[in-house]
Amino acid sequence: MGIGDDCAVFKASNNKLLLATVDTLIEGVHFLRDYCSFFDLGWKALAVNLSDIASMGGSPTVALVSLGLPKKTQIEDVEDFYDGMKSLAKKYGVNIVGGDTVSSHSKIYTSVSLLGEVNKRNPIYRKGARIGDLIMATGKCGASNAGLKILKKCVKHISTCELKQNDPLQEEMVQKHLKPEPRIREGQIIAASGFASAMIDDSDGLAFSINEICRMSRVGARVYSYLIPKAEGVSLNAALYGGEDFELIFTCKRKYADMLAYIIKKKTKTLVSIIGEIVGKNEGVKLVSKNKESRILKVKGFDHFL
Amino acid sequence: MGIGDDCAVFKASNNKLLLATVDTLIEGVHFLRDYCSFFDLGWKALAVNLSDIASMGGSPTVALVSLGLPKKTQIEDVEDFYDGMKSLAKKYGVNIVGGDTVSSHSKIYTSVSLLGEVNKRNPIYRKGARIGDLIMATGKCGASNAGLKILKKCVKHISTCELKQNDPLQEEMVQKHLKPEPRIREGQIIAASGFASAMIDDSDGLAFSINEICRMSRVGARVYSYLIPKAEGVSLNAALYGGEDFELIFTCKRKYADMLAYIIKKKTKTLVSIIGEIVGKNEGVKLVSKNKESRILKVKGFDHFL
Repeated sequence: MGIGDDCAVFKASNNKLLLATVDTLIEGVHFLRDYCSFFDLGWKALAVNLSDIASMGGSPTVALVSLGLPKKTQIEDVEDFYDGMKSLAKKYGVNIVGGDTVSSHSKIYTSVSLLGEVNKRNPIYRKGARIGDLIMATGKCGASNAGLKILKKCVKHISTCELKQNDPLQEEMVQKHLKPEPRIREGQIIAASGFASAMIDDSDGLAFSINEICRMSRVGARVYSYLIPKAEGVSLNAALYGGEDFELIFTCKRKYADMLAYIIKKKTKTLVSIIGEIVGKNEGVKLVSKNKESRILKVKGFDHFL
Repeated sequence: MGIGDDCAVFKASNNKLLLATVDTLIEGVHFLRDYCSFFDLGWKALAVNLSDIASMGGSPTVALVSLGLPKKTQIEDVEDFYDGMKSLAKKYGVNIVGGDTVSSHSKIYTSVSLLGEVNKRNPIYRKGARIGDLIMATGKCGASNAGLKILKKCVKHISTCELKQNDPLQEEMVQKHLKPEPRIREGQIIAASGFASAMIDDSDGLAFSINEICRMSRVGARVYSYLIPKAEGVSLNAALYGGEDFELIFTCKRKYADMLAYIIKKKTKTLVSIIGEIVGKNEGVKLVSKNKESRILKVKGFDHFL
């Protein structure tokens, strides 16, 4: 049973744990209409939730969508929103089963609840990192934030956003921001391997994610600045604090780290980097440079309230 | 696992169907801060979802909360919101497992996704009504809307809302609007009885609910105006179109209707009324008066966009 009754009704798989997550995007806080189409918004609203399922090693199943729209909204806009969401939903087998569309005053907002499932032995929490584990990351960090900066610049200077079509790097950064690809498949491989001990996505920035794993696992970390996979044309600071790349940050038993990286790369073609190691809690969370200088890796993730 | 990881993780019961629903309340559209406290808002945000689970005959399990707050919001307000929600959650065994609190521009909004479960044979849909079935309703209709009118009057005339404490009827109406009681237990009894064929709640008004059952079941209906259980001091029009009473409207095989009404009353002390009967689709959905005059029962439910 889908949309059209008081509730969506569906079957859960036997012997699986259920996963549930909710994320909200508000116009003017998380995005601007000047650069974000309804199609992109639909995509991203689901993508941010898919990333939460990915970072547990799960498979997404069912999405419930709440959409608040100003009265002036056109029916075509709503269709574009759902087209964007459905194109991503189809890719990952998500069933959009329920929706609540309400009138908002002046700003668009969307809140998506996503359900998923994971084998009973497989879920990877933030809290499982052990001393000696290596810290690993998928993909490259910083591109999404760089894309956002390009978009904001466009809005400011030419009021409508026209990207230089002849700059593929800028276009790539912008796409990474507007239409992020959740790491569902990578998360499943990491969880199923049995080698990973903790996992999180980097939606609030790499620095935040590592600090969060350490806080929940009650350990410390050494992160090697020169090992961090920076997106092309991006500073270390942007890679650490940009956020919204929706890459997976995870820890792995030291002796299996290379093997896990190999398996992920082989099956998904996604880059995997070893960027640090887990140490005792009293050593804190530190960033270590090539010449062995170290400083505290501050939590200063992308702040939606700024 | 509760709040604090990327997802909430929990077990589904074997041999049950999962239910999922989402509802959103927006300041200025669904409520005003002048009369609705954060405690009341937390209660109601969950109550409206519980009513959706009730109208499938299910048991609620897990809630995910998205809360958008203006920057000026006090921490005590957020605590009040969750106190209100928790007081209702506790009553019905709901586990609040996830939350997403974000900054909104100027208006409060809350979107709650609620999961539940129901025995495989038990879910009652809107679409199951058959010709000859009787139409039944729990409780009385119209009080919530009358309560809302009182509240709006207070806001208009004395800017802050002070109810005449010496008028218990007005106080009851107001409470019915601010802190509705979902009919969870009644819904479960109705579903487990095996006698009910279709069910819905009256959140959008009794007239809308009956039309919706008929539309989904492809049948018509005769509703007897003098059998409709009007709340004290409320007009027929308010009972038909007020909405938000969160009573259950359901259909039942004719010969079991009295028995089902008796069982519900006995187990829950809730009033149950037989208000009409299901007829062929070509007869339409009609309201019949005591002197056998009939007119079309228009869909003119409470419109959130008005």
